[in-house]
Amino acid sequence: MPTASGHTEAIRASQVIDTNVKDRRGNKIGEIEDIMLDKLSNHIMFAVVSFGGFLGVGEKYHPLPWEILNYDEDESAYVVDLTKQQLEAAPADSIEELTSGDGTRYRDLAYDYYKTPRYWDTLSH
Amino acid sequence: MPTASGHTEAIRASQVIDTNVKDRRGNKIGEIEDIMLDKLSNHIMFAVVSFGGFLGVGEKYHPLPWEILNYDEDESAYVVDLTKQQLEAAPADSIEELTSGDGTRYRDLAYDYYKTPRYWDTLSH
Repeated sequence: MPTASGHTEAIRASQVIDTNVKDRRGNKIGEIEDIMLDKLSNHIMFAVVSFGGFLGVGEKYHPLPWEILNYDEDESAYVVDLTKQQLEAAPADSIEELTSGDGTRYRDLAYDYYKTPRYWDTLSH
Repeated sequence: MPTASGHTEAIRASQVIDTNVKDRRGNKIGEIEDIMLDKLSNHIMFAVVSFGGFLGVGEKYHPLPWEILNYDEDESAYVVDLTKQQLEAAPADSIEELTSGDGTRYRDLAYDYYKTPRYWDTLSH
Protein backbone atom coordinates (compact mmCIF):
# COMPACT_ATOMS: atom_id res chain seq x y z
CA MET A 1 0.00 0.00 0.00
CA PRO A 2 1.13 3.58 -0.56
CA THR A 3 2.83 5.28 2.35
CA ALA A 4 2.96 8.89 3.45
CA SER A 5 6.17 9.42 1.52
CA GLY A 6 4.88 7.65 -1.56
CA HIS A 7 7.62 5.03 -1.50
CA THR A 8 6.02 1.62 -2.08
CA GLU A 9 6.42 -1.37 -4.33
CA ALA A 10 5.11 0.92 -7.04
CA ILE A 11 7.12 4.09 -7.10
CA ARG A 12 7.32 7.02 -9.49
CA ALA A 13 10.75 7.63 -11.02
CA SER A 14 10.50 11.33 -10.17
CA GLN A 15 10.14 10.44 -6.49
CA VAL A 16 13.17 8.19 -6.49
CA ILE A 17 15.50 10.73 -8.07
CA ASP A 18 17.26 12.89 -5.44
CA THR A 19 16.33 10.53 -2.59
CA ASN A 20 19.10 10.17 -0.01
CA VAL A 21 21.17 7.03 0.36
CA LYS A 22 22.34 6.13 3.87
CA ASP A 23 24.55 3.52 5.44
CA ARG A 24 23.39 1.02 8.07
CA ARG A 25 24.13 3.54 10.84
CA GLY A 26 21.85 6.20 9.31
CA ASN A 27 24.61 8.41 7.96
CA LYS A 28 23.90 10.01 4.61
CA ILE A 29 26.51 8.79 2.15
CA GLY A 30 24.97 9.75 -1.19
CA GLU A 31 21.85 10.24 -3.24
CA ILE A 32 20.03 8.77 -6.21
CA GLU A 33 21.06 10.75 -9.25
CA ASP A 34 19.04 8.91 -11.88
CA ILE A 35 17.61 5.54 -12.88
CA MET A 36 18.80 3.70 -15.95
CA LEU A 37 15.99 1.95 -17.77
CA ASP A 38 16.28 -0.99 -20.13
CA LYS A 39 13.89 -0.12 -22.92
CA LEU A 40 14.38 -3.45 -24.62
CA SER A 41 13.42 -5.74 -21.78
CA ASN A 42 11.23 -3.30 -19.82
CA HIS A 43 13.51 -3.60 -16.77
CA ILE A 44 15.22 -1.19 -14.44
CA MET A 45 18.90 -1.63 -15.30
CA PHE A 46 20.41 0.08 -12.28
CA ALA A 47 20.24 3.16 -10.11
CA VAL A 48 22.84 5.87 -10.70
CA VAL A 49 24.10 6.95 -7.28
CA SER A 50 26.47 9.76 -6.35
CA PHE A 51 28.67 9.24 -3.29
CA GLY A 52 30.61 12.46 -3.89
CA GLY A 53 30.58 13.91 -0.39
CA PHE A 54 31.32 10.52 1.13
CA LEU A 55 34.08 9.26 -1.11
CA GLY A 56 35.64 12.61 -1.94
CA VAL A 57 35.42 15.48 -4.39
CA GLY A 58 35.33 14.48 -8.04
CA GLU A 59 33.84 11.10 -7.32
CA LYS A 60 32.13 9.46 -10.24
CA TYR A 61 28.68 7.90 -10.42
CA HIS A 62 28.03 4.38 -9.18
CA PRO A 63 25.70 1.96 -10.96
CA LEU A 64 23.82 0.04 -8.24
CA PRO A 65 21.38 -2.82 -8.86
CA TRP A 66 18.11 -1.59 -7.44
CA GLU A 67 17.75 -4.80 -5.47
CA ILE A 68 20.49 -3.75 -3.06
CA LEU A 69 18.78 -0.42 -2.31
CA ASN A 70 16.28 -0.91 0.50
CA TYR A 71 13.91 1.93 1.25
CA ASP A 72 13.73 2.79 4.95
CA GLU A 73 10.56 4.62 5.89
CA ASP A 74 11.99 5.98 9.14
CA GLU A 75 15.10 7.33 7.45
CA SER A 76 13.23 8.57 4.33
CA ALA A 77 16.17 7.16 2.46
CA TYR A 78 17.50 4.12 0.67
CA VAL A 79 19.82 2.16 2.90
CA VAL A 80 22.74 0.17 1.54
CA ASP A 81 24.78 -2.31 3.52
CA LEU A 82 28.11 -1.31 2.03
CA THR A 83 31.29 0.00 3.58
CA LYS A 84 33.37 2.90 2.31
CA GLN A 85 36.01 0.39 1.28
CA GLN A 86 33.49 -1.59 -0.76
CA LEU A 87 32.26 1.54 -2.51
CA GLU A 88 35.76 2.78 -3.25
CA ALA A 89 36.51 -0.42 -5.13
CA ALA A 90 33.10 -0.55 -6.86
CA PRO A 91 32.39 0.20 -10.54
CA ALA A 92 32.01 3.93 -11.10
CA ASP A 93 32.31 6.34 -14.00
CA SER A 94 30.84 9.45 -15.61
CA ILE A 95 27.13 9.38 -16.47
CA GLU A 96 28.08 9.38 -20.15
CA GLU A 97 30.18 6.27 -19.71
CA LEU A 98 27.49 4.54 -17.66
CA THR A 99 25.09 4.94 -20.60
CA SER A 100 27.53 3.99 -23.32
CA GLY A 101 27.17 0.68 -25.13
CA ASP A 102 23.52 0.66 -24.12
CA GLY A 103 24.51 0.46 -20.49
CA THR A 104 25.21 -3.25 -20.49
CA ARG A 105 28.92 -2.88 -19.68
CA TYR A 106 28.33 -1.14 -16.37
CA ARG A 107 25.19 -3.14 -15.71
CA ASP A 108 27.25 -6.33 -15.92
CA LEU A 109 30.12 -4.90 -13.86
CA ALA A 110 27.71 -3.75 -11.14
CA TYR A 111 25.73 -6.99 -10.91
CA ASP A 112 28.97 -8.94 -10.75
CA TYR A 113 30.50 -6.70 -8.11
CA TYR A 114 27.45 -6.73 -5.83
CA LYS A 115 26.73 -10.40 -6.61
CA THR A 116 23.14 -9.64 -7.66
CA PRO A 117 21.20 -12.18 -9.73
CA ARG A 118 21.24 -11.16 -13.41
CA TYR A 119 17.67 -10.46 -14.47
CA TRP A 120 18.61 -10.72 -18.13
CA ASP A 121 19.75 -14.34 -17.85
CA THR A 122 16.29 -15.48 -16.80
CA LEU A 123 14.21 -13.55 -19.34
CA SER A 124 11.52 -15.66 -20.92
CA HIS A 125 10.65 -13.02 -23.49
CA MET B 1 24.55 2.72 -29.33
CA PRO B 2 23.83 6.09 -27.75
CA THR B 3 22.39 8.73 -30.02
CA ALA B 4 22.73 12.50 -30.03
CA SER B 5 19.57 12.85 -27.98
CA GLY B 6 20.59 10.10 -25.58
CA HIS B 7 17.54 7.97 -26.34
CA THR B 8 18.67 4.38 -26.77
CA GLU B 9 17.86 0.95 -25.43
CA ALA B 10 19.37 2.20 -22.18
CA ILE B 11 17.76 5.45 -21.19
CA ARG B 12 17.88 7.60 -18.06
CA ALA B 13 14.54 8.16 -16.36
CA SER B 14 15.25 11.89 -16.12
CA GLN B 15 15.58 12.05 -19.91
CA VAL B 16 12.28 10.28 -20.49
CA ILE B 17 10.25 12.55 -18.20
CA ASP B 18 8.83 15.56 -20.09
CA THR B 19 9.50 14.01 -23.50
CA ASN B 20 6.77 14.74 -26.03
CA VAL B 21 4.34 12.10 -27.25
CA LYS B 22 3.14 12.38 -30.84
CA ASP B 23 0.66 10.60 -33.05
CA ARG B 24 1.58 8.84 -36.29
CA ARG B 25 1.21 12.07 -38.24
CA GLY B 26 3.74 13.91 -36.06
CA ASN B 27 1.24 15.98 -34.09
CA LYS B 28 2.09 16.48 -30.43
CA ILE B 29 -0.71 14.94 -28.38
CA GLY B 30 0.88 14.72 -24.94
CA GLU B 31 3.99 14.23 -22.87
CA ILE B 32 5.56 11.77 -20.48
CA GLU B 33 4.74 12.91 -16.97
CA ASP B 34 6.45 10.17 -15.01
CA ILE B 35 7.44 6.51 -15.05
CA MET B 36 5.96 4.03 -12.61
CA LEU B 37 8.51 1.51 -11.41
CA ASP B 38 7.83 -1.91 -9.96
CA LYS B 39 10.26 -2.19 -7.08
CA LEU B 40 9.33 -5.78 -6.38
CA SER B 41 10.05 -7.27 -9.77
CA ASN B 42 12.55 -4.67 -11.00
CA HIS B 43 10.30 -3.80 -13.97
CA ILE B 44 8.95 -0.64 -15.49
CA MET B 45 5.22 -0.85 -14.73
CA PHE B 46 3.99 1.83 -17.11
CA ALA B 47 4.58 5.36 -18.33
CA VAL B 48 2.33 8.09 -16.94
CA VAL B 49 1.29 10.22 -19.90
CA SER B 50 -0.70 13.46 -19.95
CA PHE B 51 -2.89 14.11 -22.98
CA GLY B 52 -4.43 17.25 -21.45
CA GLY B 53 -4.17 19.60 -24.40
CA PHE B 54 -5.27 16.92 -26.82
CA LEU B 55 -8.21 15.42 -24.98
CA GLY B 56 -9.36 18.57 -23.20
CA VAL B 57 -8.84 20.56 -20.03
CA GLY B 58 -8.95 18.58 -16.82
CA GLU B 59 -7.86 15.36 -18.52
CA LYS B 60 -6.44 12.76 -16.20
CA TYR B 61 -3.20 10.81 -16.53
CA HIS B 62 -2.98 7.75 -18.73
CA PRO B 63 -0.98 4.64 -17.76
CA LEU B 64 0.69 3.36 -20.94
CA PRO B 65 2.74 0.16 -21.18
CA TRP B 66 6.16 1.33 -22.25
CA GLU B 67 6.16 -1.21 -25.06
CA ILE B 68 3.62 0.82 -27.03
CA LEU B 69 5.75 3.97 -26.83
CA ASN B 70 8.23 4.00 -29.71
CA TYR B 71 10.94 6.62 -29.65
CA ASP B 72 11.30 8.45 -32.95
CA GLU B 73 14.69 10.05 -33.39
CA ASP B 74 13.52 12.46 -36.08
CA GLU B 75 10.55 13.65 -34.05
CA SER B 76 12.49 13.72 -30.74
CA ALA B 77 9.35 12.21 -29.29
CA TYR B 78 7.63 8.98 -28.41
CA VAL B 79 5.14 8.01 -31.08
CA VAL B 80 1.96 6.09 -30.29
CA ASP B 81 -0.31 4.54 -32.86
CA LEU B 82 -3.54 5.49 -31.10
CA THR B 83 -6.51 7.56 -32.18
CA LYS B 84 -8.23 10.22 -30.10
CA GLN B 85 -11.18 7.87 -29.77
CA GLN B 86 -8.96 5.11 -28.41
CA LEU B 87 -7.39 7.44 -25.88
CA GLU B 88 -10.72 8.85 -24.76
CA ALA B 89 -11.90 5.36 -23.85
CA ALA B 90 -8.57 4.33 -22.29
CA PRO B 91 -7.85 3.91 -18.56
CA ALA B 92 -7.00 7.26 -16.97
CA ASP B 93 -7.08 8.78 -13.50
CA SER B 94 -5.25 11.10 -11.11
CA ILE B 95 -1.60 10.33 -10.36
CA GLU B 96 -2.60 9.41 -6.80
CA GLU B 97 -5.07 6.82 -8.06
CA LEU B 98 -2.57 5.43 -10.58
CA THR B 99 -0.21 4.69 -7.69
CA SER B 100 -2.79 3.33 -5.30
CA GLY B 101 -2.88 -0.39 -4.52
CA ASP B 102 0.76 -0.59 -5.55
CA GLY B 103 -0.18 0.41 -9.08
CA THR B 104 -1.32 -3.06 -10.11
CA ARG B 105 -4.95 -2.04 -10.71
CA TYR B 106 -4.09 0.48 -13.40
CA ARG B 107 -1.21 -1.62 -14.67
CA ASP B 108 -3.65 -4.46 -15.32
CA LEU B 109 -6.27 -2.17 -16.85
CA ALA B 110 -3.70 -0.60 -19.18
CA TYR B 111 -2.11 -3.85 -20.34
CA ASP B 112 -5.58 -5.28 -21.00
CA TYR B 113 -6.78 -2.21 -22.87
CA TYR B 114 -3.71 -1.97 -25.11
CA LYS B 115 -3.44 -5.77 -25.41
CA THR B 116 0.17 -5.76 -24.25
CA PRO B 117 1.75 -9.01 -23.01
CA ARG B 118 1.76 -9.08 -19.20
CA TYR B 119 5.37 -9.14 -18.06
CA TRP B 120 4.34 -10.33 -14.59
CA ASP B 121 2.79 -13.56 -15.88
CA THR B 122 6.11 -14.76 -17.27
CA LEU B 123 8.34 -13.91 -14.31
CA SER B 124 10.70 -16.69 -13.43
CA HIS B 125 11.89 -15.00 -10.24
